[in-house]
Amino acid sequence: MATHRVVILGGGFAGVYTARRLLHHARSLRRQGHELEVHLVNRENYMVFQPMLAEVISGSVGIADTVSPLRRLIRDAFIHMRDIEEIDLAGGTVTLSPGFKPRATVLPFDHLVLAMGNVTDFRGAPGLPEHALPFKTLGDAIALRNHILRLLDEADNETDQELRRQMLTFVVAGGGFSGVEVMAEMHDFVLRIVDGYPHIQRHECKFILIHSRDRILPEVSPELAIYAQKLLAKRGIEIWLNKRLSAASASSAILADGTRVPTRTLVSTVPSNPNPLIESLPLTKDNGRLLAEGTTLVTGTRNIWALGDCARIPLPLLPGQDKPEYAPPTAQHAIREANICADNIVATIRNQPLKLFAFRGLGTLAALGHRRGVAQIMGVKVSGLLAWFIWRTVYWSKLPGWDRKFKVGASWFIDLFFPPDLVQLRLGTTSAVHHEHYEAGQTVFEQGDLGQRMYIIIKGRVEVVQTDAQGEQIVLGSLGPGQYFGEMAIMKRRPRSATVRVVEPLDVLSLEKADFTAMIEHVDAFRAGFEHEAERRAKFTKAAIAAAEAADTAKIAAVASTEPAKVQ
Amino acid sequence: MATHRVVILGGGFAGVYTARRLLHHARSLRRQGHELEVHLVNRENYMVFQPMLAEVISGSVGIADTVSPLRRLIRDAFIHMRDIEEIDLAGGTVTLSPGFKPRATVLPFDHLVLAMGNVTDFRGAPGLPEHALPFKTLGDAIALRNHILRLLDEADNETDQELRRQMLTFVVAGGGFSGVEVMAEMHDFVLRIVDGYPHIQRHECKFILIHSRDRILPEVSPELAIYAQKLLAKRGIEIWLNKRLSAASASSAILADGTRVPTRTLVSTVPSNPNPLIESLPLTKDNGRLLAEGTTLVTGTRNIWALGDCARIPLPLLPGQDKPEYAPPTAQHAIREANICADNIVATIRNQPLKLFAFRGLGTLAALGHRRGVAQIMGVKVSGLLAWFIWRTVYWSKLPGWDRKFKVGASWFIDLFFPPDLVQLRLGTTSAVHHEHYEAGQTVFEQGDLGQRMYIIIKGRVEVVQTDAQGEQIVLGSLGPGQYFGEMAIMKRRPRSATVRVVEPLDVLSLEKADFTAMIEHVDAFRAGFEHEAERRAKFTKAAIAAAEAADTAKIAAVASTEPAKVQ
Repeated sequence: MATHRVVILGGGFAGVYTARRLLHHARSLRRQGHELEVHLVNRENYMVFQPMLAEVISGSVGIADTVSPLRRLIRDAFIHMRDIEEIDLAGGTVTLSPGFKPRATVLPFDHLVLAMGNVTDFRGAPGLPEHALPFKTLGDAIALRNHILRLLDEADNETDQELRRQMLTFVVAGGGFSGVEVMAEMHDFVLRIVDGYPHIQRHECKFILIHSRDRILPEVSPELAIYAQKLLAKRGIEIWLNKRLSAASASSAILADGTRVPTRTLVSTVPSNPNPLIESLPLTKDNGRLLAEGTTLVTGTRNIWALGDCARIPLPLLPGQDKPEYAPPTAQHAIREANICADNIVATIRNQPLKLFAFRGLGTLAALGHRRGVAQIMGVKVSGLLAWFIWRTVYWSKLPGWDRKFKVGASWFIDLFFPPDLVQLRLGTTSAVHHEHYEAGQTVFEQGDLGQRMYIIIKGRVEVVQTDAQGEQIVLGSLGPGQYFGEMAIMKRRPRSATVRVVEPLDVLSLEKADFTAMIEHVDAFRAGFEHEAERRAKFTKAAIAAAEAADTAKIAAVASTEPAKVQ
Repeated sequence: MATHRVVILGGGFAGVYTARRLLHHARSLRRQGHELEVHLVNRENYMVFQPMLAEVISGSVGIADTVSPLRRLIRDAFIHMRDIEEIDLAGGTVTLSPGFKPRATVLPFDHLVLAMGNVTDFRGAPGLPEHALPFKTLGDAIALRNHILRLLDEADNETDQELRRQMLTFVVAGGGFSGVEVMAEMHDFVLRIVDGYPHIQRHECKFILIHSRDRILPEVSPELAIYAQKLLAKRGIEIWLNKRLSAASASSAILADGTRVPTRTLVSTVPSNPNPLIESLPLTKDNGRLLAEGTTLVTGTRNIWALGDCARIPLPLLPGQDKPEYAPPTAQHAIREANICADNIVATIRNQPLKLFAFRGLGTLAALGHRRGVAQIMGVKVSGLLAWFIWRTVYWSKLPGWDRKFKVGASWFIDLFFPPDLVQLRLGTTSAVHHEHYEAGQTVFEQGDLGQRMYIIIKGRVEVVQTDAQGEQIVLGSLGPGQYFGEMAIMKRRPRSATVRVVEPLDVLSLEKADFTAMIEHVDAFRAGFEHEAERRAKFTKAAIAAAEAADTAKIAAVASTEPAKVQ
């Protein structure tokens, strides 16, 4: 029985529906002597149902109801909740970040499906990466909701008028579908709850939608866009057209023409680029996106497939066209691409001819809040309550699983009769410096592991042990309070060069790779100290090995009891 | 009109119900010429409904439905979502941590209500603060749920048998109400979802409840406790009696008798102490809790009230008793104490006699999972389905607000027909090193602000400006890339000694106070560098001031253009 391993990177519509379709073919393939193993890699354990994400802001659907657990959607796949460290196309492997063990997972593949979608990319605009709020993931939506609640809670007690103005001005940059939906939801939410804050007046709240062209919603016809603009303006949302966001600070949005808008809430839905991992791949690209054929095979490859928002997939030429159109980045296209991709992988295994992608879309839908929307379906334009109703019905019917359909239905029902929920869900530690405890005999990390953290000893003692090519263990030394270890693998970007074993019960502070790197890059005193120590240790290691060889007793090095001096 | 300001610290049942009752009296007081201003301080914007917290683990109630937004419960109070920095009883003020402005808020009070409850306190047991999971707040419950889901996701792909065993062993230390409910819910949840993980076998999952006495549930009668023990054991939960947890590491729980249990999930519900802020107050205490009178006035004071889990409130002596019993730390008692406390504050304002607390409790209830429970109500003992049904009905009826009642009802209904939700909600940044951007003309912080963060300049330039006693501004110098500022206020625990103003657009890394403190306490190289720089700056400041005075021109100090040298 031949095993075919398909590794799918990305757990959005494109990746998940490819996995589903592959699993659907698995049984018939097995009867033909082909075992199919489907692996899917995604950072979260759920798929985000993007069209309803904006509703998380007001909590009109339950926080977890706009996402679907991958485990339920693709039960029989191997699901890896990890980051991708490296893609080796020539070697046919994908390397994943470590999980509970500090060791990387290497997945070999026969077919690789690239479906990593877009990422928010604020680089290039000063202050945006630091202060603009993205709106793409469930985390983003919850963070925005929490942020709004915190602002209102603080503003209710604030007497500084300037600060109040910043706190009660809500700005969205980007007037496409996503920006408009976020603005409409945010406006709805704030005005529905503001009366509960006895010291905030309604008229103090200001809403500004900034768009770079002369009308919002480029995805729909001009008349629907104008309808939406008028509707939003009537509600009191200011629409600033032909303006471009150029910078941001914690307390203002700065436009290209120099205007400064005092605000503490700047949501930017504009810049969206393919995943940076795509950039580094030696594959044909067009404007940063992977150029694929109609089969979803990446141009010039035989087992690398690309689809969804990170790919450019041509549609068949229409009469009179000389250049192909490409499939737009929407869920309805991603799902059809996924089916073509999965069918073609199976056809490749069976040595059958491949199919071409030819779906042209059913239409577009956007919600505008307050039970209003715009829709353009198979050429027919609809606006107002009817469009909103179509929007709800279509997306509700697409929600995966009856439990979610039921829950979202119940939430909508509750939302008709009760005011929105005000709970601010703050989770997760915000501290990068972790405290850890180890008992004697445990190892903190092992030679060959990936360097994910560095450690500072508060109490206790460890010994540093290296295994040489002959498999002999050499004790390089021991470390005690005030000393640190584990920084070298991070600084030199290589696997751990030795094992650290606990001799006396150990309390350590540990610092994440990213934080440690940021510190040594920018704090001179810090870097100098660590570099000095690194040099000293390298010499020390050589001496220890030499001594061990000289004594011809590899088990205990002569220098083992000599402690490395503290760095001054 | 005389204004009476009541400041309530703590947003649990005790604090919130005191505020509610006070607001209820406010109107009639106003008619008598007394204006009542109610302030409540709590870190979160919601009150946790503790009895249902365990249900968050399996998601059988919505994540936000076991908590109630304070804004809805006590709309007309001033609600402060802040940490408490200092309580000055003699001066009659409470100082709160800064919000959006880096300046502390000082609340003067006429009456102070201490209702800060208990905190989980793992100090003293090595490894527990680092590796045991507490179970007290909504954040704890969500973290535990996420942790379980992550373990199962990882275990499904894990081939190392030792690691699998750690991942699939679930340990709870503490067999009181809270520990038993957590274990029952966790067991239910894991067994309901484990079949969705194709590479985990049911029999691999192990559940251990550790308790220090010879029977669990000390809150109920022996026969109910035995019933509960048998029920849990029948389901496959191991109950280890007369065992005590003494230490923990990331991969094991260590008992006092030396037994090591390999596990990645150790929930400890045992150690619970009053809030550390209570410790520092010069008030009469009994076993760490504030000793109050039956009026809820703290013994020996006239305007300091204490109630809830952080207080000891005596019950009236029964015939034959010579020592009073104290009110136990339960929600039903806290609510009655709150009413007494609020009524007595109002009576004090009106110069009327005070009431005494005399409530003796209605009974106890615990859920055991799988629709079973135990209950002891007004002397009657009930177990099994009926007790579980009473449990649900009683707590459901106590849920504040019809929207929550409806939502929880709907969730329970859905839970009958659908499998549990598997979404892992991971929020919040885990990085302590933040990137911030400022535009020219902004200030990073102002003289007199609290020191919350330190800053490292990546790009741009700032000037450091001090205002002297005469109100004159002296520019102490300017700082550029690679230099840092803001560390002195943290190291010396005092307000900012100068204002930092941005001269050229600024990119900085910033580090939280707690993280910075941990680093300088334990990394020698780091501390030495910063101390050296601090000395140098102190000299520099003196020189700048002297020069400015000499030149008799305070606006621009002669040394303003001299840059402080980089620290080596």
